Amino acid sequence: MMSVSNAQAKPSIQICRIMRPDDANIVGNVHGGTILKMIEEAGCIIGTRHCNTQNGDHCVAALARVERTDFLYPMFIGEVAHVSAEITYTSKHSVEVQINVLSENIVTGAKKVTNKATLWYVPFSLQNVSKITEVPPIEYSSSEQEEAGKKRYEAQKLERLETKERNGEILMSVSVPEPYTVAFSQSSLIHLIGPSDCTLHGFVHGGVTMKLMDEVAGIVAARHCKTNIVTASVDAINFHRKIKKGCVITVSGRMTFTSNKSMEIEVFVYADQLVEAEKGKYRAVTAFFTYISLDKDNKPLPVPPLKLEGEEEQKRFDEGKARYLQNKAKRLADKECQQ
Amino acid sequence: MMSVSNAQAKPSIQICRIMRPDDANIVGNVHGGTILKMIEEAGCIIGTRHCNTQNGDHCVAALARVERTDFLYPMFIGEVAHVSAEITYTSKHSVEVQINVLSENIVTGAKKVTNKATLWYVPFSLQNVSKITEVPPIEYSSSEQEEAGKKRYEAQKLERLETKERNGEILMSVSVPEPYTVAFSQSSLIHLIGPSDCTLHGFVHGGVTMKLMDEVAGIVAARHCKTNIVTASVDAINFHRKIKKGCVITVSGRMTFTSNKSMEIEVFVYADQLVEAEKGKYRAVTAFFTYISLDKDNKPLPVPPLKLEGEEEQKRFDEGKARYLQNKAKRLADKECQQ
Amino acid sequence: MMSVSNAQAKPSIQICRIMRPDDANIVGNVHGGTILKMIEEAGCIIGTRHCNTQNGDHCVAALARVERTDFLYPMFIGEVAHVSAEITYTSKHSVEVQINVLSENIVTGAKKVTNKATLWYVPFSLQNVSKITEVPPIEYSSSEQEEAGKKRYEAQKLERLETKERNGEILMSVSVPEPYTVAFSQSSLIHLIGPSDCTLHGFVHGGVTMKLMDEVAGIVAARHCKTNIVTASVDAINFHRKIKKGCVITVSGRMTFTSNKSMEIEVFVYADQLVEAEKGKYRAVTAFFTYISLDKDNKPLPVPPLKLEGEEEQKRFDEGKARYLQNKAKRLADKECQQ
Repeated sequence: MMSVSNAQAKPSIQICRIMRPDDANIVGNVHGGTILKMIEEAGCIIGTRHCNTQNGDHCVAALARVERTDFLYPMFIGEVAHVSAEITYTSKHSVEVQINVLSENIVTGAKKVTNKATLWYVPFSLQNVSKITEVPPIEYSSSEQEEAGKKRYEAQKLERLETKERNGEILMSVSVPEPYTVAFSQSSLIHLIGPSDCTLHGFVHGGVTMKLMDEVAGIVAARHCKTNIVTASVDAINFHRKIKKGCVITVSGRMTFTSNKSMEIEVFVYADQLVEAEKGKYRAVTAFFTYISLDKDNKPLPVPPLKLEGEEEQKRFDEGKARYLQNKAKRLADKECQQ
Repeated sequence: MMSVSNAQAKPSIQICRIMRPDDANIVGNVHGGTILKMIEEAGCIIGTRHCNTQNGDHCVAALARVERTDFLYPMFIGEVAHVSAEITYTSKHSVEVQINVLSENIVTGAKKVTNKATLWYVPFSLQNVSKITEVPPIEYSSSEQEEAGKKRYEAQKLERLETKERNGEILMSVSVPEPYTVAFSQSSLIHLIGPSDCTLHGFVHGGVTMKLMDEVAGIVAARHCKTNIVTASVDAINFHRKIKKGCVITVSGRMTFTSNKSMEIEVFVYADQLVEAEKGKYRAVTAFFTYISLDKDNKPLPVPPLKLEGEEEQKRFDEGKARYLQNKAKRLADKECQQ
Repeated sequence: MMSVSNAQAKPSIQICRIMRPDDANIVGNVHGGTILKMIEEAGCIIGTRHCNTQNGDHCVAALARVERTDFLYPMFIGEVAHVSAEITYTSKHSVEVQINVLSENIVTGAKKVTNKATLWYVPFSLQNVSKITEVPPIEYSSSEQEEAGKKRYEAQKLERLETKERNGEILMSVSVPEPYTVAFSQSSLIHLIGPSDCTLHGFVHGGVTMKLMDEVAGIVAARHCKTNIVTASVDAINFHRKIKKGCVITVSGRMTFTSNKSMEIEVFVYADQLVEAEKGKYRAVTAFFTYISLDKDNKPLPVPPLKLEGEEEQKRFDEGKARYLQNKAKRLADKECQQ
């Protein structure tokens, strides 16, 4: 047992990583989101570590608030991001973490402070997820320092209370479609094409598009029947136009048909050339996915029937039914052939 | 140089990989999309390799069509997926690849055929992306085999032509909002929470949420000004409710304000409990992101002004302007403090 | 311009990260490959940074060799891996980096040294990829230290020369082999190199290759003993030829030796240039991985003996046994030294 004593452990940490093509846009600028995610990881490590330094329930520090964060300089692929985090204030139930982000060009040696951030964490018990545990106090180098921390704490507490009310309000105004209708389960996602999504000449791999289509179809199916769902089949898909690097693709799905034990979902892919002025948005791919719902032993469950609204939906349902019956007949014929 | 002769190389390939938690849903069923992506990767490798076996332009095989694909058995985390691909027909400009997918439980030794798929590829020149190159012919073991392949080729060609027309049609019917309006650039994505997005007690890392928020905000900004854009700042974000494993989160962004050289985008995160009956959809987070537009030398570019429609948008614009002026004043004050 | 002076920068670095579900197997043990990849990233950062500290061509440090690496304790999901790297020797054209890996359970506070590794890097010019640049010398605290480094340098140089010769090929049998034979567990995977797998000049990171090698070795081991298995050690690996972006790499593994509680797996990496004219498949890397089998409490289990078929397999087994006994003797000698 080679366990290392951490009696002297200061509440600080540093994490770093090389920025890869997938962390950046096509011009090479690292996404702000990549940096925010690293900042939060550092905060979560130091916060969780600190909150477990005294006896009591084991806990995990959950992010409660991020103060305004500025991005002072762009960061680039191949640079190393250094994120250093330090605990600067603790209240009874929260921890303030201050973070500095530095970009280092390991080839030229240039270093720049790109971000400063302040995060607030609250520790939740691992045994009882709704219980907030107590935070061990830190030592301050001066009473002024402690006083300044307390002021920051009070200010953010006030602001948190305000936004809590605001968020509650808006929740009510969302009009929700009736369960089991097409409108209830229909879903849409957008995906910014990254370098790893593309072939050598900068077009999106067909497999990437199909994976996103299946993802949307799965969300539509899960929203409809609220159980564990799996892909049963995919109809033929034609790729007429290639989708280029730097595009945003929008993938939308809507349910068209339900049988006793299956759901058919139509999926559309639109490609949107963001930067190049030329084209605008165009439909790139369409397909039908069939999903089934499974119980805990992976046996098929009955599917709630789709509630249709209007002629359009009825027409699509009937077309779906025709496809369903045709596939069923074909499967039977194939079986007989094999016998 | 230990290069191995590949004169006798048959046009076939086998790829395999262990299924990881992120390949599956929370119950452990591997997503259909993960398998479709592996199938297409195998097809792309074998197609590209074959199309480069004779002299002429170097090329990459692009997916043109996938025939109907059935998922015969579910696959699980920890199993090994084996994807074997074989070229079964070539026309002058296309390649048919047939693929078998096998799941292997390496612990029990059980193996199952989970999918069979047929893909069609077309080779595009690396020098001139719009040029289709010629496909080297393969040898058939019998003329019946060649004849059967030709029939499959003709059948899919016909169906491709049909869907091409259909897709073209629908393209026209999409009503497009006017450029520079709020409606034009507003965007929304959904994300199914995976295992790697979560903390030890099954809640989403705040950093994961922030990364998705930044992704949507970036798409809104790029749609508005169609240039290279980067995050300049993020206003304070409060996390009032924890988002749980198995949720679908919807992240939406709309532009609220533009100054000469910056754009403010409001981002909303909704969490939607898919499987657990309890809650339904709730607003989890909101925040304001500020983006700037950069030229090739990373110098800020002017931003096209936002076209406002209706009182609501005007009100949000004015509020955005107030935040903008307040931050500007604060930056100036900070600068003076430092001097 | 807020660039920070790095006059005081010591040639050392520390990187750390929370282990996620995708970094581990289904029982929660972090893959040896995940750790090897982090080790190599730390080595690449510190090596590249150091080689650019004097005037001359900008360069990137490419991995040339990893010394034998032992995995002393398993690491688990949710723990933080700390990788600290230090430059310990420089020759005219190579850099020795020594690395320590520590696992930290941020909830219980437990810390363990899980690995120690030694890596050798060679700097290649960014302007001319086939040119090796000169390495700035480091300062040694004593002449004994420098002398010891020089000995390590000469020893690895000699061994690198020897391995360049080694050869062999894995032939996959079609018929289903008997359990516990070499043919039964041998495995192969294929990976299409993506942008995030590569360095700034478009060559595959050594760490990416090692991670794939560990993945194949793990499949071979699991197929053989059908239990939870973990990496126990990796023999020295030499990287003789760089693997380029756009390649397909094939990684194959076969079991060579079993002792009572361990398995030795030989892993080969072939690189296959899909598109470029030079083409041909070539052997890029080989290595020996040792795995052990663990029960539910992470205690070692007995390993079923390997059934040998033919002289070749017997010969490899005997060689494996010699390596095993040699390592065992070395471990004992090291222990006595420390007492």
